[in-house]
Amino acid sequence: MTDSTNQRIVLASRPVGAPTPENFRLETVAKPEPKEGEVLLRTIYLSLDPYMRGRMSDAESYAEPLAINDVMIGGTVCQVEASNNPDFQVGEWVLSYTTGWQKYSLSNGVGLLKLGVNPTNPSWALGILGMPGFTAYMGLLDIGAPQAGETIVVASATGPVGSTVGQIGKIKGCRVVGIAGGEEKCRYAVEVLGMDACIDHKAEDFAEQLKEACPQGIDVYFENVGGKVFDAVMPLLNTKARMPVCGLIAQYNATSLPEGPNRLSQLTGLILTKRLKVQGFIIFDDYGHRYGEFAEDMNKWVAEGKIKYREQVEVGLENAPEQLIGLLEGKNFGKLVIEVAKPL
Amino acid sequence: MTDSTNQRIVLASRPVGAPTPENFRLETVAKPEPKEGEVLLRTIYLSLDPYMRGRMSDAESYAEPLAINDVMIGGTVCQVEASNNPDFQVGEWVLSYTTGWQKYSLSNGVGLLKLGVNPTNPSWALGILGMPGFTAYMGLLDIGAPQAGETIVVASATGPVGSTVGQIGKIKGCRVVGIAGGEEKCRYAVEVLGMDACIDHKAEDFAEQLKEACPQGIDVYFENVGGKVFDAVMPLLNTKARMPVCGLIAQYNATSLPEGPNRLSQLTGLILTKRLKVQGFIIFDDYGHRYGEFAEDMNKWVAEGKIKYREQVEVGLENAPEQLIGLLEGKNFGKLVIEVAKPL
Repeated sequence: MTDSTNQRIVLASRPVGAPTPENFRLETVAKPEPKEGEVLLRTIYLSLDPYMRGRMSDAESYAEPLAINDVMIGGTVCQVEASNNPDFQVGEWVLSYTTGWQKYSLSNGVGLLKLGVNPTNPSWALGILGMPGFTAYMGLLDIGAPQAGETIVVASATGPVGSTVGQIGKIKGCRVVGIAGGEEKCRYAVEVLGMDACIDHKAEDFAEQLKEACPQGIDVYFENVGGKVFDAVMPLLNTKARMPVCGLIAQYNATSLPEGPNRLSQLTGLILTKRLKVQGFIIFDDYGHRYGEFAEDMNKWVAEGKIKYREQVEVGLENAPEQLIGLLEGKNFGKLVIEVAKPL
Repeated sequence: MTDSTNQRIVLASRPVGAPTPENFRLETVAKPEPKEGEVLLRTIYLSLDPYMRGRMSDAESYAEPLAINDVMIGGTVCQVEASNNPDFQVGEWVLSYTTGWQKYSLSNGVGLLKLGVNPTNPSWALGILGMPGFTAYMGLLDIGAPQAGETIVVASATGPVGSTVGQIGKIKGCRVVGIAGGEEKCRYAVEVLGMDACIDHKAEDFAEQLKEACPQGIDVYFENVGGKVFDAVMPLLNTKARMPVCGLIAQYNATSLPEGPNRLSQLTGLILTKRLKVQGFIIFDDYGHRYGEFAEDMNKWVAEGKIKYREQVEVGLENAPEQLIGLLEGKNFGKLVIEVAKPL
């Protein structure tokens, strides 16, 4: 079924601290018409990811911030609903980073990644086979460079990045200790994802439990949260430990620096005395040229059942703001995807 | 002239904050006698270096701390005064890391580096051709990996590490901005060492001057000081900047963390958004296997006059404590070496 209107969600105002529903506005506008050379994309799945919080602020970051009234950005899996471009046929699936939070968009085809006419699990291009999976793969293997027998620690252990880091760590013969919020997620990390242990960061004795779970210390800490998790990790880092940094979700909503003392010198001192390597990365900017290598390994691991993948699919574009707010609080369980429309 | 006694300086007590003369004790003991297989080493030059401060504390670090009453550690250049070891002849020069702050020591030869019978500038094995030069070379080239046209910033710009970093940076075609304490050192860094600019960290508008000297931002910050220099560097770091960390002299005497706010999350946030690589290293542990590569390049550069080297030689073992205390305050100018005895 098609529609004669387009719905989209724009940035209404910048959040101060955690985003609220008032920071978003749902708009109904005319459905766009593809001109010569263009395709009309129908959004089927919209990905929700922590980095979106950063783009809502105007603080300097690795990408330009959104302007007020801009359509919220995000990866989408779309179908071609109408085509005036000979390279694309109606019904074909594509991955788009230019659509964002809306039901319909136009494209001249540049930057669209073709997913075929009848893909298996098309939404996985937003997760295990896309940005989050690729982030886990390159950050862990290229920066973390784990050796068999070493200990890897990763937070958000049931999320799309953390769960992939943990499972690749097991494939590489490492001890993997996950960190997640709540008993259910921790059980899933161990029983389904095969991690050696998973610690609940909501536990009062979290730091102590983490220490007990890492009797040989930590060789790779895959940093995607920051905050108190990093505080607990710091004293456990081994000499020559590696720390890929792909996210700091615990810090995104902060409106000011935490109270003192100023521990900046404690971190640089640790980097010196433990000879740590700490390296930030943005997956497509730094590793875009190695996507093929990732896709080959990951498709094989998924086919062999070595990597398991969990999605949480929520229906309806209008629910995206509430779901993103919940994501930043750790409410989701698995890769969060909005089903914007049924396939053609 | 030889002597029938040995003099040595031991750690009398652990410093709280900056070391004081009371933390050291000069002892006179019997001159040791070499047994079968041993050599008697006569210390000619003793190196003084910032890392020694760390070894005086019992805080966890990359090396075991000294025990109270241990002879202070340090690199020395010695001559063989007596030999019961067929591999060493009297009068031969060696580099020793087991002698420390004393006039005489015994060795079975293990770990001694032979410098020959009549070396040119034997004390240079403690500086440009030794640990500090090697630190500058590997930290800059392996971790910093500067490309021609990039901007390198290094503090302690007239010290043995900083001056070498700066001069290698110029050999590699980079813009080099040094930081040093006082006008005389800054002039030397530019006029003699060939740096493009050198900023006096004692200037009130130091951070502003540094910014003006780095119109293209900073691509490599060679970290050997920490403290307020790093504070001024942080906002100037470019995307994908590299930061080898070999020392934090500004922090060594700190007895507590600075007042808040807690800026740890500011540093991790910067590492993420700028995709920085921050890596600590200990030269012989991490790069010992690449010493040959360094020695070849450095001997060539020195012979060609491309690298200039400045020493400050102070006479008398008894002056070593006062000189080390001054070194930690930036009072030295060039590589600080104690002449413990005249050559045989």
